[in-house]
Amino acid sequence: MEQVSLRDRKPISDLIAIGEIGKEYVVAGWVDSLRIHGKLVFIVLRDRTGKIQVVAKKNISEPAWRAARELSPESVIAVKGVLVESKAALGGIEIQAKAIRVLSRAAPLPIDIRNPEKTTLAKRLDWRYLDLRNPKITAIFTIESDLAISMAKWFEAKGFVEIFTPKIVGAATEGGAEVFPVIYFDREAFLAQSPQLYKQLGVISGLERVFEIGPAFRAEPHHTARHLTEYTSVDFEMGFIESYEDVMDIVEELLLDTITTVLERHRKIIEEYFPSARTDLPKSIPRITIREAYKLLRSVGHAIEEGEDLGTEEERILGSIIEKEYGSPLVFVTEYPWKVRPFYTMKKVDDPRYTYSFDLLYGGLEIATGGQREHRYEVLRKQIEEKNLNPNSFDWYLEMFRYGAPPHGGAGIGLERVVMQLLGLRNIREARLLPRDPERLKP
Amino acid sequence: MEQVSLRDRKPISDLIAIGEIGKEYVVAGWVDSLRIHGKLVFIVLRDRTGKIQVVAKKNISEPAWRAARELSPESVIAVKGVLVESKAALGGIEIQAKAIRVLSRAAPLPIDIRNPEKTTLAKRLDWRYLDLRNPKITAIFTIESDLAISMAKWFEAKGFVEIFTPKIVGAATEGGAEVFPVIYFDREAFLAQSPQLYKQLGVISGLERVFEIGPAFRAEPHHTARHLTEYTSVDFEMGFIESYEDVMDIVEELLLDTITTVLERHRKIIEEYFPSARTDLPKSIPRITIREAYKLLRSVGHAIEEGEDLGTEEERILGSIIEKEYGSPLVFVTEYPWKVRPFYTMKKVDDPRYTYSFDLLYGGLEIATGGQREHRYEVLRKQIEEKNLNPNSFDWYLEMFRYGAPPHGGAGIGLERVVMQLLGLRNIREARLLPRDPERLKP
Repeated sequence: MEQVSLRDRKPISDLIAIGEIGKEYVVAGWVDSLRIHGKLVFIVLRDRTGKIQVVAKKNISEPAWRAARELSPESVIAVKGVLVESKAALGGIEIQAKAIRVLSRAAPLPIDIRNPEKTTLAKRLDWRYLDLRNPKITAIFTIESDLAISMAKWFEAKGFVEIFTPKIVGAATEGGAEVFPVIYFDREAFLAQSPQLYKQLGVISGLERVFEIGPAFRAEPHHTARHLTEYTSVDFEMGFIESYEDVMDIVEELLLDTITTVLERHRKIIEEYFPSARTDLPKSIPRITIREAYKLLRSVGHAIEEGEDLGTEEERILGSIIEKEYGSPLVFVTEYPWKVRPFYTMKKVDDPRYTYSFDLLYGGLEIATGGQREHRYEVLRKQIEEKNLNPNSFDWYLEMFRYGAPPHGGAGIGLERVVMQLLGLRNIREARLLPRDPERLKP
Repeated sequence: MEQVSLRDRKPISDLIAIGEIGKEYVVAGWVDSLRIHGKLVFIVLRDRTGKIQVVAKKNISEPAWRAARELSPESVIAVKGVLVESKAALGGIEIQAKAIRVLSRAAPLPIDIRNPEKTTLAKRLDWRYLDLRNPKITAIFTIESDLAISMAKWFEAKGFVEIFTPKIVGAATEGGAEVFPVIYFDREAFLAQSPQLYKQLGVISGLERVFEIGPAFRAEPHHTARHLTEYTSVDFEMGFIESYEDVMDIVEELLLDTITTVLERHRKIIEEYFPSARTDLPKSIPRITIREAYKLLRSVGHAIEEGEDLGTEEERILGSIIEKEYGSPLVFVTEYPWKVRPFYTMKKVDDPRYTYSFDLLYGGLEIATGGQREHRYEVLRKQIEEKNLNPNSFDWYLEMFRYGAPPHGGAGIGLERVVMQLLGLRNIREARLLPRDPERLKP
């Protein structure tokens, strides 16, 4: 049989778009389906760019025909053949095989990859590498990748410096209890819940504007459709701000710009596969204070106390009120009460019960949180004490504010949550390649 | 005094490049130095883009003059003033202050940030946020950021999908002992030594070409100038390769392209601050087999057994031989012995004592390692056993090769090592914002 070199391989989408009838090509990928009709074998070959029919005819190449007869679905092959017109084939073209090289033979599959809804999510995740063979599932991660890269480019264009901060830390970053302990040689350490203190260090170091797209770890024992114990946090921090409004401006521009980029590239696929996608973006994102949020919630009969945090249910209701009233799936809720925000949050000058902070809701789910940070040493020290935290646990952090710290603020955005809400997925695990939760450590 | 809004702030480099004499500007940053002469105060103001002189004259604005007199080095200020010519000032221009807003007052500094060589590296790292106030140190991280972002863009342009893989894993990825245990609720887990198994999963899932730039963790108890317990690994993996040469082609093109981009942007700064920088890149990187390496080492009188790994000292010697012979600071050493490579490495068809693998040396230090992976289930299973590993520990991984796995390969590149060798730094800790080693967990 003729040699088939993978170095001659063309993406299937190229053949569909600009393939010349009568020309010889090499394609390679997975056997999507297989039909054997005597002296003819029809293969639908799939690579990540698309699908094309391959026909192996005994009278054209007997070795290729023999190889084709022995195939199984999801086996990996490379095919050399001539592109011909074919009325019966998808797209009106097919490859007439001159040679088939079998790269990997697949055993019968343990799950039905054509119909993900027939398999439980848990089982799909056990077999994630097969689950992804379905183009709808692949699309989620292509979109997530495009979104992450677009964000990095956006930050670069706006003068942010990418930093890589420690994930092994000596003390809990956010002052909370939900941390994973690490055995660090003979000492105890923890996994970083966020790069919060380190991105502030980046600003105060003189880098002025920093960002990081990396893992964050939360030892939340709860099972919900919204939480992961490990997720990708898109974090930024910027110095020399006049107000936390400047931070919201950045979050707004970042998300509207990068989601628009993703939509331009993937609109067809999103329309085809994700009927619940939230793609109608506003020109600007409405901003309401939490006190206005309390009023709106009460106006629909939902009892909530002044000064309380918003729960999942309240966020959902608020999201739908705003959607109706402003036509926006996105809303900033601002000025959260001091008692529900971390120690580093700056208090409101005219009413210290509230803070210069915000959450961003998308489809009624928190996807980002941020605000202005307290940069005055004495005030920060008091705030640590007010939260009943031990200033000694924050030694280097607190000390940092004694040597010239500009006013600054920033935000953290959950990458998987953005993708989940954009595509209208029902479980955050759908938007994470290999999710971790209290039960899941594999694959 | 007049109001000074940070929203009017201009980068100092803009004033130097395109500032109009006689026009009013707002600049902000750190007080680099301060001289008080009676009714005049001279401030050199520094932001991350450059330095400019500010003069506060009592007869122009008494409040600004009073504020200036009270400043200390490294305090943070915003200045509104008129740009004027000044023969005595750096660059021939200065700002005549009309208003000064003090954003943060700095206490006396614990280290001499002008002369990093006067402070031990350990102490500099304790005070990293002050250490970075020196523009030479800032430059290291601006360059590292540019390199990382250039790499992500390069991968995107070549059709690689960015993935985010778990850092909390159920079993040691590389089969070795140097892992950090994590207490994962009531179970034991580990920190990922590399995304190796997961990036292979990405390829086999049908994503075909994947990359990740993220943290990797190694519990190496050794103190060297080359090791960190946490570093940034630039990983990629690609399917449908014909040979591990295809993988080296990608590593070569990636590094030469992105380092060239960085050099174009920072050549002046690199020449000014980093006299030991390795900036003379070859058009293509020489490739020698490890057997050729043995010969070269013996030719300079260095005894090394056939079939042994190269140690740090051997890599250094080899690097300088190649530098002399080929004029290249970079060299691929290929076909490492099977006994020193991990179980997933593909063996050489014609001599199974060696493998389709490579290391890339830069200035005599390993900066990347990679090769073709074994994708045949039965062979892979045998290789796991040959390494005395338990196939049960690799259950999901091994199983993956039963359902259609294309030939594939990839590499991992140490971001900090590339920066270290590019700039000629003497310790890897210089290239890591907040390094972790067996002793260091702070800041």
